[in-house]
Amino acid sequence: MSNPQHHHEKPVLYSYFRSSCAWRVRTVLNWKGIDYEIKSVNLVKEEQKTLEYSKLNPLKEVPTLIIDGLVLTQSLAIIEYLEETRPEKAVLPKEPGKRALVRSLVLAIASDTQPVTNLRILNYLGDDRKEEWTKYWMSYIFEGIEKQLKEVAGDYCVGNEVTLADICLVPQVFNANRFKVDLTPFPIIQRISDKLLELEAFKKAHPFRQIDCPSELNSKNNT
Amino acid sequence: MSNPQHHHEKPVLYSYFRSSCAWRVRTVLNWKGIDYEIKSVNLVKEEQKTLEYSKLNPLKEVPTLIIDGLVLTQSLAIIEYLEETRPEKAVLPKEPGKRALVRSLVLAIASDTQPVTNLRILNYLGDDRKEEWTKYWMSYIFEGIEKQLKEVAGDYCVGNEVTLADICLVPQVFNANRFKVDLTPFPIIQRISDKLLELEAFKKAHPFRQIDCPSELNSKNNT
Repeated sequence: MSNPQHHHEKPVLYSYFRSSCAWRVRTVLNWKGIDYEIKSVNLVKEEQKTLEYSKLNPLKEVPTLIIDGLVLTQSLAIIEYLEETRPEKAVLPKEPGKRALVRSLVLAIASDTQPVTNLRILNYLGDDRKEEWTKYWMSYIFEGIEKQLKEVAGDYCVGNEVTLADICLVPQVFNANRFKVDLTPFPIIQRISDKLLELEAFKKAHPFRQIDCPSELNSKNNT
Repeated sequence: MSNPQHHHEKPVLYSYFRSSCAWRVRTVLNWKGIDYEIKSVNLVKEEQKTLEYSKLNPLKEVPTLIIDGLVLTQSLAIIEYLEETRPEKAVLPKEPGKRALVRSLVLAIASDTQPVTNLRILNYLGDDRKEEWTKYWMSYIFEGIEKQLKEVAGDYCVGNEVTLADICLVPQVFNANRFKVDLTPFPIIQRISDKLLELEAFKKAHPFRQIDCPSELNSKNNT
């Protein structure tokens, strides 16, 4: 990997306000109190496909994080790196069984849901199927997650501590609302997401608080 | 999570011979020399949707691993657990920057490709689009991965040690071949996958070596 920055420089996050993957990393950076600079990559304008950006991120995705002289891609890989190098304000529990439980919820969202319903997939799928497809898959996974949460949730997804599962949940709920997925069958998911949005690290990471959020959205409230 | 087994019992892996997610876990168990028993869940016969199985795995997916008195789901969460509790024969490098690199390749496959092209997605997509969809998305991601590998590959995906990236790559290449994706633009991917299949842990995990592999496939060679 290239080495475009020195270690003492402020981390740079290539982000798009509405990208749920970038949102996860924003939340973790805020949660851990890591100061960072945002560079916006407009996915709708396909700025992720420029030669310059694709050199940083060969899969042409956001986020990319420049930190410690490294170019890091894939939100979960970035977050595990931050957890390993900045363990304060942990987003994973200490005990391996609990870590596995948190990661299983994380992957239900980050592997089974988001990649199946993201912008590039929906564009390729075609306009006529976007809505039905999104509703079907988001509901399918939320049904499984809600069942798991019935057994393990406290104030947050796993007990009473904020974990990476919560950090992934909030953007997924936002997207579900955006696509008008009926969330009434998933009261635990809704309750936890609402509670998380009261926390400063989550508020600050919200799309409507981003520098690249269009002003007409900015003026709406955080739902 | 329920506690159906005692710690001293042999781990049980709920697997399907052709599931690439189960395959990843089989490879890691073999690699680390962990003895285990397989219980087959036939995805084509929809055995993953039975009430009994969905209690173990609310998302109705394979694999599920019963180990140390825990019920673990999601292949990557299971593998991270095995890595944390059985660190010998590591599948992740020690250094955080390298771990992030390996995990970014892992997620390109396990998040960006497999969930978008798995059995349930293709069934829902419809027969008329299965082939074009699979070819498009597998090629799209392989293009990005091949570019990354140009910079970081040695004998294997990241240098000369087997990592989790390799363990995820082999099933993805198998699936690409199954769907007749043209792999000639991806010589590094092909070369590494071929080399990995010479290793005993990878051979033993291959679908055609599984107890639930139909005999007509069993008799074919490992390609």
